[in-house]
Amino acid sequence: MTVVTFTTDFGTADGYVGAMKGVVLSLAADAVLVDITHEIARHDVAAGAFALAQAASLYPTGTVHVAVVDPGVGGRRKELLVEAGGALYLGPDNGLLSLATRGARQGRVIRSIEAPHFRRPSVSPTFHGRDVFAQAAGRLAAGAPPQEAGPVLAQMADLDSAPASSASGRSEAAVIMHIDAFGNLITSWAAEALPASRFFIQPDGGQPFEVTSGRTYSDVASGELMAYVGSAGFIELAVRDGSAAGRTGLARGDRLWLGRAS
Amino acid sequence: MTVVTFTTDFGTADGYVGAMKGVVLSLAADAVLVDITHEIARHDVAAGAFALAQAASLYPTGTVHVAVVDPGVGGRRKELLVEAGGALYLGPDNGLLSLATRGARQGRVIRSIEAPHFRRPSVSPTFHGRDVFAQAAGRLAAGAPPQEAGPVLAQMADLDSAPASSASGRSEAAVIMHIDAFGNLITSWAAEALPASRFFIQPDGGQPFEVTSGRTYSDVASGELMAYVGSAGFIELAVRDGSAAGRTGLARGDRLWLGRAS
Amino acid sequence: MTVVTFTTDFGTADGYVGAMKGVVLSLAADAVLVDITHEIARHDVAAGAFALAQAASLYPTGTVHVAVVDPGVGGRRKELLVEAGGALYLGPDNGLLSLATRGARQGRVIRSIEAPHFRRPSVSPTFHGRDVFAQAAGRLAAGAPPQEAGPVLAQMADLDSAPASSASGRSEAAVIMHIDAFGNLITSWAAEALPASRFFIQPDGGQPFEVTSGRTYSDVASGELMAYVGSAGFIELAVRDGSAAGRTGLARGDRLWLGRAS
Repeated sequence: MTVVTFTTDFGTADGYVGAMKGVVLSLAADAVLVDITHEIARHDVAAGAFALAQAASLYPTGTVHVAVVDPGVGGRRKELLVEAGGALYLGPDNGLLSLATRGARQGRVIRSIEAPHFRRPSVSPTFHGRDVFAQAAGRLAAGAPPQEAGPVLAQMADLDSAPASSASGRSEAAVIMHIDAFGNLITSWAAEALPASRFFIQPDGGQPFEVTSGRTYSDVASGELMAYVGSAGFIELAVRDGSAAGRTGLARGDRLWLGRAS
Repeated sequence: MTVVTFTTDFGTADGYVGAMKGVVLSLAADAVLVDITHEIARHDVAAGAFALAQAASLYPTGTVHVAVVDPGVGGRRKELLVEAGGALYLGPDNGLLSLATRGARQGRVIRSIEAPHFRRPSVSPTFHGRDVFAQAAGRLAAGAPPQEAGPVLAQMADLDSAPASSASGRSEAAVIMHIDAFGNLITSWAAEALPASRFFIQPDGGQPFEVTSGRTYSDVASGELMAYVGSAGFIELAVRDGSAAGRTGLARGDRLWLGRAS
Repeated sequence: MTVVTFTTDFGTADGYVGAMKGVVLSLAADAVLVDITHEIARHDVAAGAFALAQAASLYPTGTVHVAVVDPGVGGRRKELLVEAGGALYLGPDNGLLSLATRGARQGRVIRSIEAPHFRRPSVSPTFHGRDVFAQAAGRLAAGAPPQEAGPVLAQMADLDSAPASSASGRSEAAVIMHIDAFGNLITSWAAEALPASRFFIQPDGGQPFEVTSGRTYSDVASGELMAYVGSAGFIELAVRDGSAAGRTGLARGDRLWLGRAS
C-alpha cells in the first residue's frame, strides 16, 4: 500500500490529472493517491519545487512523489527518479525536485528513467506526466525496485533558490520564496533571524515597512503587518485579517533587507 | 480502514492540505482520505459549518471529520474532538463543528485535545490543521480511543444559526444559510413550509419576489425563479438556467419572510 | 477494491462531491475514489463527455465511472448504467456517457437504474448524483452485479460530436472539441491529418491562420502557433508559452478547414 502524491501545474478543469491516476491504478490497484496541488502557476518550476518540499517531508517512508511542472516536456531534459531521505521523487530534470531532495543531498541517488517498462509503450511528447512519470510511479508502487528505472546520473538541475542570506553591514538579505493563497509572504529568512519586537523590512529600491514580531495572528491588531516563524520554518509576513502581499505590493523573488528598528 | 474527511478554507493552491494528509498517512497508512471542500471563504466559520453538516451525515459510522476554518488559530480557543452520532469531529472551538453535531446533541461528548501524542512534538501557532487536528486524526484512524485525547468539556461554542423560524402574524421568517456555486439560495425554511403553487418572498426592507413552487428545475420555464425542497432538506430558491443570487441580489445571512400569494 | 471515478460540473466549493463520496463509502468502505474533474462548465454535457472519455480508458478493468452533468435532473431522462469495454459507467441519459463508451459500441449494455437498492430510499429530484448515481456506484463497488440495476435499454442518447471529417474539394473539416486550461485547442482531426510542415487553418467565415507542424512545444519558437498530435490522439493547436485560444479567438464547436500551404 504505497502512497503516491501529485504536484502539477495542470489545474483540475481538464482530465489530465485523472489520466495520470488511471495509469498508476492500472499498475498498482492498491496505491493511495494524494494531491499536493495542481494549481502551481503554469510553468512556474520554483513554485512547484516549494510546494513539493513543504509537504513531502511529512509523508511516510517509501512514499512516491510525482511532480510535473515541465515547460521543456518532449525536449532534451531528462526524466528523473530521485531517491532521497527514504522517499522516491519523479519529475523532469529542471530543478523541480531539487528543494525537496536537498536536505538528503549526501544520500540522494539520481536516475534517468529509461527502462521500457517504466514508460508507456507510446510516449506522447507533450504528456510525460501520464506516459513516463505516472507509469514509473505505478511500477514503483507495485514493488519494482528503483534501480530498474535506469542509469545513475552524476547530477541534476538545481534551483538557484539557496536562501540569499548573504550578510551585509547592517542587515541580512532574503528573497520572498512564496506567496500563499492568504497573501502571506514566505521569506528565506530562517527562524533565528526574527527580531524580538518591532523592526523594519527594506525592499531593494523601495520604501521600508514597519513590522511587529509575533507568534501568531492574534498577537497583533486587525490590519497590522506582522512577522512570525511560519509553519515551514521560515519567517513569514502577514497582515491580520488581510493580505501582506496586497499591503506591501511585494512579489515572489523580491529581495528584502532586515533592519533592526533604530 | 478509517475514512478521514477534510473541510477547510485553505484552498488547494498551496501545499497545506497535502501537508495535513501526509501527517495522517504517516500515522495511519490505510486511512481513506476524502476532501469535502477546501474552498470555504477565508475565515467563514458559518459556511464551513454548513458544508460539513451537509456532507457528514452521509459517511460511514466511525468516520473522522477534520474541519479547519480557524481565524483564532494559536490564540485561546481550544482544539476539540467531538464524538457525535457515531462519528468523530476534529476542529477549533469556534462553532465550526456545531451544526454537524447538533442533531446528536444529547449524546455528544466534547473533549479538549491535550494529550501529547495527539499533537505533533512542535506545534506551529499558525498551523494547527497540521500539528493538532491532522495528528489527532491520524491517531484516531490508527485505532487510538477518543478518550485518550484529553479531558471532557462541558460545552463548546455554538453558531447562532438556529433556523430563524420565529413565527409572525402573517408569515414565517428564515435566513439564507448558504449560496452554492450555482447561485442557489439555501434557506432555513424546513420542507414543510413550501407553499403549494405561487407565493412571494419578502426580504427585510426590500421588494418582494414572486416565486413558483416546484419539485425540480425542469418544472419551471428557463429563467423563472422557483422554490423547491433542496437536497439538504431545506427550501431552496433557484433560477432555472440562471442564478437566484444574481437575480435577487440576496446574500447569505439575509432575512426573508414567506408571503402566501394574496 | 474497486476504483470509482467522478466527473461532474459541481465544482468543489460546496459539499456536493463530498456528499456523493460519503454515500459510496457507506456502501463500499474499501472503494478507491478518484476525481477526474468537477470543473466542467455548468450544464456543458459535451465537455463532460470529452473529459470522461479522455481519462476513462486509462483505468483498470472493473472501474466504475460516475459522471453527472445533468441539466435535466428530476425530469424525464433516464438514469443509466452502461457496461462497455470492461468498465461500468453511471450517469444521466443525455449523451454524457456516449463518447467514453463509443469505442465499445458493439459490446455495450445499457441499463436503466430502477432497482430500489440502487437508489437511496428518498431520491431528491435535484440531486441524483447523490441519491441515484453514488448509491449505484456503491452497490457496484460492493460487488452487486450490474444486471441487478434494472432493465436493458435498446439505446441511449448520443452526442452529435462525431468528428466532422466530411471531405471537401480542397480540405477536410474539423470542429474544436475542447479547449484546455492552457488554451490549447483540441480538434477532431485524427493524427494522420497532420501536414508535414507549414500549413493553414481556415475557420468558417474567418481569416486563415498560418501554423507550423511540430512534435512538441519546444520544436517552435516562443509565441509561435503550432499543431501537433496531442496526448488524446487528435491534432491540437497551441502557442508556445501562450494561449492558442487567445491568439485565434476560436471557441469550442467552431468549424475549421485544413489548407495545405499553397
